[in-house]
Amino acid sequence: MLSLKVTEEGLTAVKGIQVASRRAGLKTQGRDLAIIYSERPARAAAVWTTSQIKAASLLTSIKHLESGTVQAIIVNSGIANTCTGERGLKDAEEITRIVAEELEIPQERVLIFSTGYIGRYLPLEKIRGALKDIKYDLDNSLAASLEAVKAIMTTDTRPKRISVKVPLGNGKEITLGGMAKGSGMISPNMATMLGFIATDVNIPPESLKRMLKTSVDKSFNMINVDGDMGSDAVVLLANGTESLTEPEMTIFQEALDYVCISLAKMIVRDGEGASKLMEVRVRGAETSRDARAVALSVVKSNLVKCAIYGDDPNIGRVMLVIGASGARLQEQKLDIYLENIKMVEKGVVIEFDRYEATRAMSKPEIQFLIDLNMGQEEAVAWGCDLTPEYIRINSEYPT
Amino acid sequence: MLSLKVTEEGLTAVKGIQVASRRAGLKTQGRDLAIIYSERPARAAAVWTTSQIKAASLLTSIKHLESGTVQAIIVNSGIANTCTGERGLKDAEEITRIVAEELEIPQERVLIFSTGYIGRYLPLEKIRGALKDIKYDLDNSLAASLEAVKAIMTTDTRPKRISVKVPLGNGKEITLGGMAKGSGMISPNMATMLGFIATDVNIPPESLKRMLKTSVDKSFNMINVDGDMGSDAVVLLANGTESLTEPEMTIFQEALDYVCISLAKMIVRDGEGASKLMEVRVRGAETSRDARAVALSVVKSNLVKCAIYGDDPNIGRVMLVIGASGARLQEQKLDIYLENIKMVEKGVVIEFDRYEATRAMSKPEIQFLIDLNMGQEEAVAWGCDLTPEYIRINSEYPT
Repeated sequence: MLSLKVTEEGLTAVKGIQVASRRAGLKTQGRDLAIIYSERPARAAAVWTTSQIKAASLLTSIKHLESGTVQAIIVNSGIANTCTGERGLKDAEEITRIVAEELEIPQERVLIFSTGYIGRYLPLEKIRGALKDIKYDLDNSLAASLEAVKAIMTTDTRPKRISVKVPLGNGKEITLGGMAKGSGMISPNMATMLGFIATDVNIPPESLKRMLKTSVDKSFNMINVDGDMGSDAVVLLANGTESLTEPEMTIFQEALDYVCISLAKMIVRDGEGASKLMEVRVRGAETSRDARAVALSVVKSNLVKCAIYGDDPNIGRVMLVIGASGARLQEQKLDIYLENIKMVEKGVVIEFDRYEATRAMSKPEIQFLIDLNMGQEEAVAWGCDLTPEYIRINSEYPT
Repeated sequence: MLSLKVTEEGLTAVKGIQVASRRAGLKTQGRDLAIIYSERPARAAAVWTTSQIKAASLLTSIKHLESGTVQAIIVNSGIANTCTGERGLKDAEEITRIVAEELEIPQERVLIFSTGYIGRYLPLEKIRGALKDIKYDLDNSLAASLEAVKAIMTTDTRPKRISVKVPLGNGKEITLGGMAKGSGMISPNMATMLGFIATDVNIPPESLKRMLKTSVDKSFNMINVDGDMGSDAVVLLANGTESLTEPEMTIFQEALDYVCISLAKMIVRDGEGASKLMEVRVRGAETSRDARAVALSVVKSNLVKCAIYGDDPNIGRVMLVIGASGARLQEQKLDIYLENIKMVEKGVVIEFDRYEATRAMSKPEIQFLIDLNMGQEEAVAWGCDLTPEYIRINSEYPT
């Protein structure tokens, strides 16, 4: 069992990480530019969206990350710099150049991420103006951290950040800190979601990439708000000097899982219009792929989402969604529980206590356990309910 | 160009097809049992759901259809007979036995379909009572046809039926008639949707099956209301004696496409809470599979559905959904039109007339054309908007 201490500082809990934020006027109000800065060049890894339409800013970051070393990240909210063609690429490149100049670091160590409206160009001069002398704003205070998280929010209603301190058992301690944004268009494979995590250890780029991918597949890739995908990324910076032993690496992986899952759940909880969280645990699958397919099919079903919103223990919908998931299963082996209430046994909907079931569905967090009874593989996915508020937000949000 | 005459009779437009309907008390009101009867044993083919959880009634029909000959179909609404295990199978078998006895035909020529609540057993005695002497109700009148369509409705608000008469050019004429149900849980692969089509020609079972599959892939498998799947089927009965020549078969296929597409569009238009229809036409795809993937990804996107509901020409959402569709495409080749308004050119959102675009989005039928400019393949898909009414229906519908 992982022993860790959770704090709210976010990224700046990690030694050597500073942040700054400013307003450039891309959003109607508030700060809309954030800088994450590592005093020492950090080893960096990222997991990118699998979408074939990538923001110009993202393409620029993919190129800059090739070296495996990052020292600054600029994030703007308000405009996504997506579907902006050649001009979008030039704009992104120019902004990383400005940041590099302001921070006096090589340009290829600067990443850029943009989130917000699609199909609009970034106002370069406004951004250039807002970045003037930004280095003097760099800070590792709790207040600065919170301001930076707010600056990357779009339709988010709550800033999402976490940090953990993990004892390694030999008196040493490692720290991980992170922040994220994203509320609508959240679906597996990095959907209009950005995550930035830092840690004070030294991990070789290849291990860093593999470990981040492992954590992302258990967290950001297992959540769903509305099934659509944006263009996004999770970045991990490791700026420490001390290397980890093999057992320490295992602890680090668990801590990274914890940070990613925590941020991912914050994103779902803050899903557009969401009033409830559902956690869907699948066990007994033949393959991990089957387990994941079943869990994700349930959290992304509009009908299940509506049942959650309506406090309705509509287990039939869960059954049909599982059947259509494409996973290998046998109807007559399927057991389903709502919390600890067995509702389906060997594929048949059994008598259950309706009062208790409705009570379980009325909670802010709904828990389903699906046992396929086919094998040993497991998965967990998280989703939210579908509410009239979701439709209001997404039909009134102007283009 | 296919020349045909459309009428509203539905199934009974086809010579030798009769229907009857009764109330067994499975729904809170109205008739809930329908019988489709062919005076002569008909050659039959079906396309079944790909879901791994199939209604007991469906499993029974799959077995009975093995002979390729069908003379009667019983459909009940109100209870889906799904997730009902062994008992559900016995109930379905017994009901086909009763129908066979009442109509004095072999039991293996009777199919059964059930739609409605999941996880409930069919009340056998009520159904037995309602089927007593049903043969005396068999009728081919317009009124009987309409009553039968109504009897298979669940959350549908409008009965769905069509018939066409098609001249073959040599003085001969063929007739096709059909009815369908389904409004929620409509997604490709036969989602809680039932379709029954009859024709007065003689087509060998293998051709019948292939032709039905061809039409279903262009129609019922290209629609989306909410992305979830139920357990359903489309059945085609051919009760004629006259065979068709090769060119006549081509005409028949076109007529069958027309009937299936018409019924499929009626289903989308009557989607739960739907206020608008969207038609998404994709061209220039490398493969048919890519074209279909792009078209379906757009019609099933919650964000696009919300934009449609809000009259919002939010082309950015369409772009992102296309990017995430998994189809082979290149962003810089993509053109998108809303009606005849070009909104995206070579992957870049261009200046367009906002007034005209909003006007196009405000119509009851919204038309997108997506040109991938990669190849020659095409596809068309249909979907509806996502409205607060959809959520009301699906969060208040009791289990």
